[in-house]
Amino acid sequence: MPLVRISLRKGRPAEYRRRLGDAVHRALVDAFGVPEADRFQILAEHEPGDLVYDPGYLGIVRTSDIVIIQLTVSAGRTLAQKRALFRQIADNLAALGLRREDAWINLVEVAKENWSFGNGEASYAPPEKALA
Amino acid sequence: MPLVRISLRKGRPAEYRRRLGDAVHRALVDAFGVPEADRFQILAEHEPGDLVYDPGYLGIVRTSDIVIIQLTVSAGRTLAQKRALFRQIADNLAALGLRREDAWINLVEVAKENWSFGNGEASYAPPEKALA
Amino acid sequence: MPLVRISLRKGRPAEYRRRLGDAVHRALVDAFGVPEADRFQILAEHEPGDLVYDPGYLGIVRTSDIVIIQLTVSAGRTLAQKRALFRQIADNLAALGLRREDAWINLVEVAKENWSFGNGEASYAPPEKALA
Repeated sequence: MPLVRISLRKGRPAEYRRRLGDAVHRALVDAFGVPEADRFQILAEHEPGDLVYDPGYLGIVRTSDIVIIQLTVSAGRTLAQKRALFRQIADNLAALGLRREDAWINLVEVAKENWSFGNGEASYAPPEKALA
Repeated sequence: MPLVRISLRKGRPAEYRRRLGDAVHRALVDAFGVPEADRFQILAEHEPGDLVYDPGYLGIVRTSDIVIIQLTVSAGRTLAQKRALFRQIADNLAALGLRREDAWINLVEVAKENWSFGNGEASYAPPEKALA
Repeated sequence: MPLVRISLRKGRPAEYRRRLGDAVHRALVDAFGVPEADRFQILAEHEPGDLVYDPGYLGIVRTSDIVIIQLTVSAGRTLAQKRALFRQIADNLAALGLRREDAWINLVEVAKENWSFGNGEASYAPPEKALA
């Protein structure tokens, strides 16, 4: 269900990007209970000037290693689950050698009926009623 | 009104990408009643490793031809309209020779007042009241 | 708080893109009261065929200089604030020599608890309660 967009500075090897994706997905599985197979991610690399971040907003020191992660998810998670997701993503990025300060995350919530995983079906909507 | 983001694997010719855009727009016109001229789309090509999909989630077999389509639209469509949109996009992609299983779609809904189509106007908001 | 995605046609120098980002950020500060340091932007350049716009929808004449700006922001702004933001962005782009007609803007609104600016914290959520 989530659609994950991960933006980072250009120049990291494909293997690094794959591990970034793994780290974010692992957090979704652990904190949101997303099924293991429910993995859909778009990674994008940017020129330094095209990935703009403030190096100190809210007292958090960010570097050019910043990873901006925007996740579109179904609505309904509690604040506790969101906290757990943020913490888990930062922890998992740290396990890759990134700084926890460089884990930048935003959630966009949508209705469950707003997803189609293929075949033109509304995958999470209630079954269509038969015509009477 | 819709802003359509279409992501696909790198390497398809421009003409193919144009037809993808046509196919999605046609579905919006037919299923959502979007005006013909209301077409705004951003297509992006990705390295294979940067377009991550599960090949079997929900029992749907996906290939590297997957097209991930995220549409930002005004809120207010019924579930029946959303179903029609999903079906129509899959059908239209199939008419281009794509597999219906590879049509991956997500809707993000926003308020009608959240659009400006130019000139700095809130294009769909009620007219501004004159000052009393 | 805002995450700003700016899409434009390929070929503009980095300095031009930086000034685009400045222009949009200045409008957010002025119209939405966003803190000066709260600046996070992703710019993306596209081949002409991959940035699709209608040249006349709603009677507004657009050119290939179109800038498509999608801003994810916390919910809660009034319509008056949104109008001010749209106007200010168009004005600021005009000050760079762009046409006001080519300022294309969409807002996506999310809950305040949906942001993490680093360190795995829910930056804008109420403080976590201590365990009893």
